[in-house]
Amino acid sequence: MREIFEAELQQVGDDLAEMSRLVEGAITKAGTALLTADLELAQQVIASDHLIDAIERDLDERCVLLLAQQQPVATDLRVVVSALRMSATLERMGDLARHIAQVARGRYPKRALAEPLEQTFTEMQAAAVRVARRTTTLLTTRDLTVAHNIERDDDLLDTLHQDTFAALLGTEWHGTAQETVDVTLLGRYYERFGDHGVSIARRVLYLVTGQFSDDHSVPGAQSS
Amino acid sequence: MREIFEAELQQVGDDLAEMSRLVEGAITKAGTALLTADLELAQQVIASDHLIDAIERDLDERCVLLLAQQQPVATDLRVVVSALRMSATLERMGDLARHIAQVARGRYPKRALAEPLEQTFTEMQAAAVRVARRTTTLLTTRDLTVAHNIERDDDLLDTLHQDTFAALLGTEWHGTAQETVDVTLLGRYYERFGDHGVSIARRVLYLVTGQFSDDHSVPGAQSS
Repeated sequence: MREIFEAELQQVGDDLAEMSRLVEGAITKAGTALLTADLELAQQVIASDHLIDAIERDLDERCVLLLAQQQPVATDLRVVVSALRMSATLERMGDLARHIAQVARGRYPKRALAEPLEQTFTEMQAAAVRVARRTTTLLTTRDLTVAHNIERDDDLLDTLHQDTFAALLGTEWHGTAQETVDVTLLGRYYERFGDHGVSIARRVLYLVTGQFSDDHSVPGAQSS
Repeated sequence: MREIFEAELQQVGDDLAEMSRLVEGAITKAGTALLTADLELAQQVIASDHLIDAIERDLDERCVLLLAQQQPVATDLRVVVSALRMSATLERMGDLARHIAQVARGRYPKRALAEPLEQTFTEMQAAAVRVARRTTTLLTTRDLTVAHNIERDDDLLDTLHQDTFAALLGTEWHGTAQETVDVTLLGRYYERFGDHGVSIARRVLYLVTGQFSDDHSVPGAQSS
């Protein structure tokens, strides 16, 4: 019985890691599509999102079956409940990558980003890809220094998000309403992407340490 | 044992309804604050959001304890797992109401909404309040016609959200960048609020019928 349970739990963990790898691929392609006006990449992201959704559904079914058939307690129970939560979060991260790809597709063959914002979004994209990559690493290794680095990149995304508002509201901004709308939405998508990464970091932290970090810090994190 | 379980399950249901009532109050005040530039109301929403978060944490703890101690199966298990999901959704709805209040507060003593958009957001606000009120009703009665009406108001919110883009990108729009940013974000907040209402409607539908509606329809819903 225990062996079956361990195997099922392993499968849940593998599914989460697989979702995270797909999210990593999606945000990488979506950002490239956005920054280089690559229609083909944008289409790929939009067309592939259902794969992430499908794993979420399978994983949720498996978790509910696990709860019913194995009736786990203590740490095992926490792992299953957390998996239910993290799968929903990863599914949202996939949606956000898709939204970014949709903006890129909507403006093609033009670039969606007005030139003064390109550098900021290049940095946001790099931070979001790191969040995604580290989420995969965290889910497979449970190394808490990785959780700390996810929080740092989320802080960076928040700062860059504020920079986008500063640019839009500054005297130098002469973009069209469409450009203003796009920058506003894209900034929001990246900012939320970081938030979701932090949500996963905190859940893994909770699984490993039993402590849930409610404020914006991970034990061992340098204040910044 | 069964009596204790029933009482605990009842408490979980009561907590969800209580969260939903708080969300209803939050969106009602946030929208009024937005439409009338009422700083006091905006502050109330922002200051009260932690109450919703606190119920979510209590409820989640209670659900995990319930799973561990009572080891529910079949329908009971589905009810507990769904409660975990719905509490996260209600918490997000509270956050969105807070975001709307924050925009109202940020522009005070001015109104955040440029005049041509006031009517659209008055309608969005009315639809969002109906979604919130019906979510409370649905959670307390499980009446599926209410679920259907939530989907209808979500459709209306999507249409009104498209209207905001049409207004921003039309030739008549001469708003400032700040106004464009605010309308873009506010539209997104309302649109997401509706999505979350639908998410709860579908979870209750699943609990009652065992069917999970993946497409945008509830059995018995008129096509529109």
